[in-house]
Amino acid sequence: MKKYNVAIVGATGMVGEALTQVLEERNFPINNLKMLASARSANTVMEFGGKEYRIEEAEPGAFEGVDFAFFSAGGDVSKELAPEAVKRGTIVVDNSSAFRMEPEIPLVVPEVNPQDVEGHKGLISNPNCSTIQLVVALQPLHQLSPMKRVVVSTYQSVSGAGKEAVDELLDQSQAIIDGKEFEKNMIPHKGAKRNHQIAFNMVPQLDVFQDNGYTKEEMKIIKETQKIMGLPQLKITSTTVRVPVTLGHSESVNIEFQGEVTPQEARKALENFPGIIVIDDPDELLYPMPVDCAHKDEVFVGRIRRDESVDYGLNIWVVSDNIRKGAATNSIQIAECIIEKGLC
Amino acid sequence: MKKYNVAIVGATGMVGEALTQVLEERNFPINNLKMLASARSANTVMEFGGKEYRIEEAEPGAFEGVDFAFFSAGGDVSKELAPEAVKRGTIVVDNSSAFRMEPEIPLVVPEVNPQDVEGHKGLISNPNCSTIQLVVALQPLHQLSPMKRVVVSTYQSVSGAGKEAVDELLDQSQAIIDGKEFEKNMIPHKGAKRNHQIAFNMVPQLDVFQDNGYTKEEMKIIKETQKIMGLPQLKITSTTVRVPVTLGHSESVNIEFQGEVTPQEARKALENFPGIIVIDDPDELLYPMPVDCAHKDEVFVGRIRRDESVDYGLNIWVVSDNIRKGAATNSIQIAECIIEKGLC
Repeated sequence: MKKYNVAIVGATGMVGEALTQVLEERNFPINNLKMLASARSANTVMEFGGKEYRIEEAEPGAFEGVDFAFFSAGGDVSKELAPEAVKRGTIVVDNSSAFRMEPEIPLVVPEVNPQDVEGHKGLISNPNCSTIQLVVALQPLHQLSPMKRVVVSTYQSVSGAGKEAVDELLDQSQAIIDGKEFEKNMIPHKGAKRNHQIAFNMVPQLDVFQDNGYTKEEMKIIKETQKIMGLPQLKITSTTVRVPVTLGHSESVNIEFQGEVTPQEARKALENFPGIIVIDDPDELLYPMPVDCAHKDEVFVGRIRRDESVDYGLNIWVVSDNIRKGAATNSIQIAECIIEKGLC
Repeated sequence: MKKYNVAIVGATGMVGEALTQVLEERNFPINNLKMLASARSANTVMEFGGKEYRIEEAEPGAFEGVDFAFFSAGGDVSKELAPEAVKRGTIVVDNSSAFRMEPEIPLVVPEVNPQDVEGHKGLISNPNCSTIQLVVALQPLHQLSPMKRVVVSTYQSVSGAGKEAVDELLDQSQAIIDGKEFEKNMIPHKGAKRNHQIAFNMVPQLDVFQDNGYTKEEMKIIKETQKIMGLPQLKITSTTVRVPVTLGHSESVNIEFQGEVTPQEARKALENFPGIIVIDDPDELLYPMPVDCAHKDEVFVGRIRRDESVDYGLNIWVVSDNIRKGAATNSIQIAECIIEKGLC
């Protein structure tokens, strides 16, 4: 079996760390693994899975001889270096939003649109975390009856804002318990005009606001879902909220269909779909919760029930680890998909 | 000005405490204030607003001479004692769900359906916390154009499950920060077949499950909204979620209208409606959040924007203190409304 030279760009971040773990867990066929990060982190040594790696500076020359590069260092790094990597024959799976909406760039969730990797030009975009778990849950339902409209409200963990945001949640929680002052620097995002408390609070803003009153995160859910599912006209709206959870995003999803979809049919279709685990047992008070879904690769679906406010509707509750399936795992599945299809 | 003999039933709970505070803040015309609770708490002394009150046992005779009784001691106590109080000429404002859906019992949010107190038979029900803030926000919008359909997802604080649940959230948070074991007794509710972690987690269950897969909390939002707004056919669906916030419920509300309602028109109508404060300034990263709305009596609305997935739709974000406007304040406003209308 062929083995590949792999690079991780943004190795020191949460997604970088998860990429390393998931590559190992899935026995990705690695010849050489290269850890790239900013010049600031270069030459530091990190341990992953019992092995030590010296971080190298992410610069164009670093991609010579690299077969697959997983980018997760923000849009600016991707815009600068992904084209350089592609120029050197590297297949880039980019976790930033830099190229996602470019028509010629595939935006792929392997359970949903694996065919879209075909004809790739060296760069495949990995969707936004909140989009990935949504489309995985929607796809088997849409196959039962075409969707007419989707309304999503999210409950997104602070890990989506990085390690420092997780630390800030814990620090603020401790300070509030102790009745002490605390710092607010990470939510809604680092360097924001105004930062908000996240511990014991809800912040209805992720990413920056657009002119239409939606946040960029909300527009990502809308636009990326349409692109991945191949439904550019899909009627979908979203509200995204940052919540005081360390890991795992939750979504309350309301779906209107063109025809009848019973909760029983939905449950069966979801159970039979790859990458989904259904937890839906009201008698036992069982449903997906972030603490149970953290560190797992699947999308978890529960609270499946008929929406009586439309002719054919369902409400569902969708939870997934935003760092794993929402980023690292999906990126690696894209690379696996390319290998399987002989497209590298 | 006439003064009234007032009793609080469930004086030792969070709502009981808030009732005492709000009665004082609003200068409710009190002659005598009687604190009633279970036999277990009787004869203990509690201090409210610098005054000491001896708790008396809530039993039928305690209502002799009482003009207004605010009940907040659970459905069983209301079922047993509210009729006894009414029999003795007391006007009962009941915060439990015991009588809310009985057709002849008014279910009132004074900003929305003050007229429904007319013809009361001695007992007026106070709606569920998550319903109250919802209908206050919906009413001015429905006046602009009749609503076709509402989809609600909630983010509800643990104070709705009582003092012990607030303590449990803080205890669990501390234990998780310290890497220690912790107890789970209060969520989804005390005595549940299975209890869940609430710290750094999301629990998509409030109250018990019904046969249709909805929780009782979700059905309360649906049925109570229809009753209060006088729209028994209103198409509305809901998903309710317990979140690790101590005080203040948030709601992501999607509304489809029969005709055009611009965000500007909506904002103006909300700003002009009694009991609503609009916080909606994306440029300044300002929107309602539970930590800012706690200990206040208003309903706060923000994130007002067009829903492009329907012809005429809006998304809004609604936050309110569930113990104040969601329970104590609204109960007292009902009594004030009865006094104003000369119905006592």
